[in-house]
Amino acid sequence: MGDRPSQYGRSVTTPVRIALDAMGGDAGPATMVEGAALAVRADPNLTITLFGDAAGIERERARFPILADRSSIVHAPHVISGEDKPSQAIRRAKDSSMGLSIAAVKTGEAGASVSAGNTGALMAMSKLALRTMPGIDRPALAALLPTLGDNDLVLLDLGANTECDARNLVQFAVMGAAYARTVMGLQRPRVRLLNIGTEELKGTDELRDAAQALRDATDLPIQFDGFIEGDRLGRGEADVIVTDGFSGNIALKSIEGTARFVADLLRRAFASSIRSKIGFLISRPATELLRHHLDPNNHNGAVFLGLNGIVVKSHGGASPQGVANAIGVAVKLVEADITRLVTEDLASIRSPIITGGGK
Amino acid sequence: MGDRPSQYGRSVTTPVRIALDAMGGDAGPATMVEGAALAVRADPNLTITLFGDAAGIERERARFPILADRSSIVHAPHVISGEDKPSQAIRRAKDSSMGLSIAAVKTGEAGASVSAGNTGALMAMSKLALRTMPGIDRPALAALLPTLGDNDLVLLDLGANTECDARNLVQFAVMGAAYARTVMGLQRPRVRLLNIGTEELKGTDELRDAAQALRDATDLPIQFDGFIEGDRLGRGEADVIVTDGFSGNIALKSIEGTARFVADLLRRAFASSIRSKIGFLISRPATELLRHHLDPNNHNGAVFLGLNGIVVKSHGGASPQGVANAIGVAVKLVEADITRLVTEDLASIRSPIITGGGK
Repeated sequence: MGDRPSQYGRSVTTPVRIALDAMGGDAGPATMVEGAALAVRADPNLTITLFGDAAGIERERARFPILADRSSIVHAPHVISGEDKPSQAIRRAKDSSMGLSIAAVKTGEAGASVSAGNTGALMAMSKLALRTMPGIDRPALAALLPTLGDNDLVLLDLGANTECDARNLVQFAVMGAAYARTVMGLQRPRVRLLNIGTEELKGTDELRDAAQALRDATDLPIQFDGFIEGDRLGRGEADVIVTDGFSGNIALKSIEGTARFVADLLRRAFASSIRSKIGFLISRPATELLRHHLDPNNHNGAVFLGLNGIVVKSHGGASPQGVANAIGVAVKLVEADITRLVTEDLASIRSPIITGGGK
Repeated sequence: MGDRPSQYGRSVTTPVRIALDAMGGDAGPATMVEGAALAVRADPNLTITLFGDAAGIERERARFPILADRSSIVHAPHVISGEDKPSQAIRRAKDSSMGLSIAAVKTGEAGASVSAGNTGALMAMSKLALRTMPGIDRPALAALLPTLGDNDLVLLDLGANTECDARNLVQFAVMGAAYARTVMGLQRPRVRLLNIGTEELKGTDELRDAAQALRDATDLPIQFDGFIEGDRLGRGEADVIVTDGFSGNIALKSIEGTARFVADLLRRAFASSIRSKIGFLISRPATELLRHHLDPNNHNGAVFLGLNGIVVKSHGGASPQGVANAIGVAVKLVEADITRLVTEDLASIRSPIITGGGK
């Protein structure tokens, strides 16, 4: 995502402020603060507010002089852990780094919040603070994945909603398509549901009911093409692929794990003989390009769609460059004014699927 | 799988007969019959019975002289289609190529059946004809995947059971471990459940309940290590990974799709400049090895565990070499006497998880 800025209309160059949960992620403030430094270095319009343990953040920040003018620190005494349930997390909205960084989006102090913390907690806190858009019951986590086609793929939900009913899936399709129309500029995105076969009878009741609803909703500004299987995700055959958060998370992580697996194999293969090593050195520009393409850090940063504000989830294990890429995603979404665009897009839909309203 | 025969104790070299559903698969008898020819060419102990439209099969078989002595044809007037529901399929047990190839396993005419047809139909027909082993409610589809560790990984279920309860998942764990003990020779396989996080509270009720049951079952000959995420599948951190058939299918196909995606990127990267092309030619042995490793056809062939007989599922889109590999998997399982070994292994387990008996 980070390396495809041309897909976003960067018409606005006004300053952008991002609220960063500096305590989330497996490695804590060291990685998050270094990511912030990389992000502001790459974007002169960016400033960052760092939320979390002020003393710890200050120590890390001292390593990066560029952050002295381009960041501020807001102390938050509490950290949401990976073990916290969403119900526990929302009680710490007012004193946790995650909660305060989301609150900064609500008040308008920041254009977007970025966190590498617990997905379930981030979802629950974001929903409580920012509320869902009209007609949307639940937000969904969406990311752009590279494909062999002309456009990236919008894949959602990536783990915000472990179990989904047909109504949720249909709303994810509509939100994903709104994202593709507004951010990617596609007029009538091609939408599919992820399933274990393409025949109409395959999968769960929820999937079959969602497919029927999408087939019937001919008034939606989408082209619904039925089901798609996991091995076709990257073929460029769809602009938006919809699934429940459990399967979406499994699919995304299987893709990431395989990419890393292949990169390791590639390294071993090229190290296997002198001849291979020479070939590797000669073809280095090509293999570097591939390595860059396969590194999940370069595609880091998923957005919660359906909220009245921008919250971006960074991978818990992301590198500083991965964190910087997630911040870059947040900046682009702020500049694209995605919340207003998706809200307007959804409001223009007269289908009862959306106008039926939230629960 | 096809290229790791050393994991199987090939002590028996008596003739093996495989029943091949020659009508299953996306490409029909042409691919299946060519796969049969490749398989018998590679294994002098192998003969194959081809089930399906006799005239069509005869036409294809004429292209491969080796099959004249090494195969026979059994006419089956009906073909199970991808659209057939399991309930429809089982009514055609007696006149379909799929049904008759499974029946040949039941009667002992063949050591195993191989089909590239509709997974749901194959599962239903196999279960009806062969019945499940004592203590097992539902069979599960298992395959070996390559890892960066010393052993392959047993991944199940890959699509036989779209929705599973905790009891099913626990039985899959026990069956997968029996497979790892008997075929791979591991005494105490390391077992994990696929989930969207590793914390105990993550995932569905079914997963949490299954994890609790496996933690409590200290009498099982397994080492249960909790949950694992999709990006760790190929790291060699587990010998057996258990999931429901929906997620397992999504994971497997995402892996296959990504491998293919990367192979395509690799081709493009190396074709991008003269310099890269030269590097590619020099390092060809390395890239060929990688290409071989990434081709899903080389890992084709998943087995239904928990049945009183061997049924192997070949990928619907497999190449002739892929079909031959699936037949090779079936042969190895016959030679390993897997049905007897897994039955004995399960019978030796005194845990109430198994002795509680089938539904």
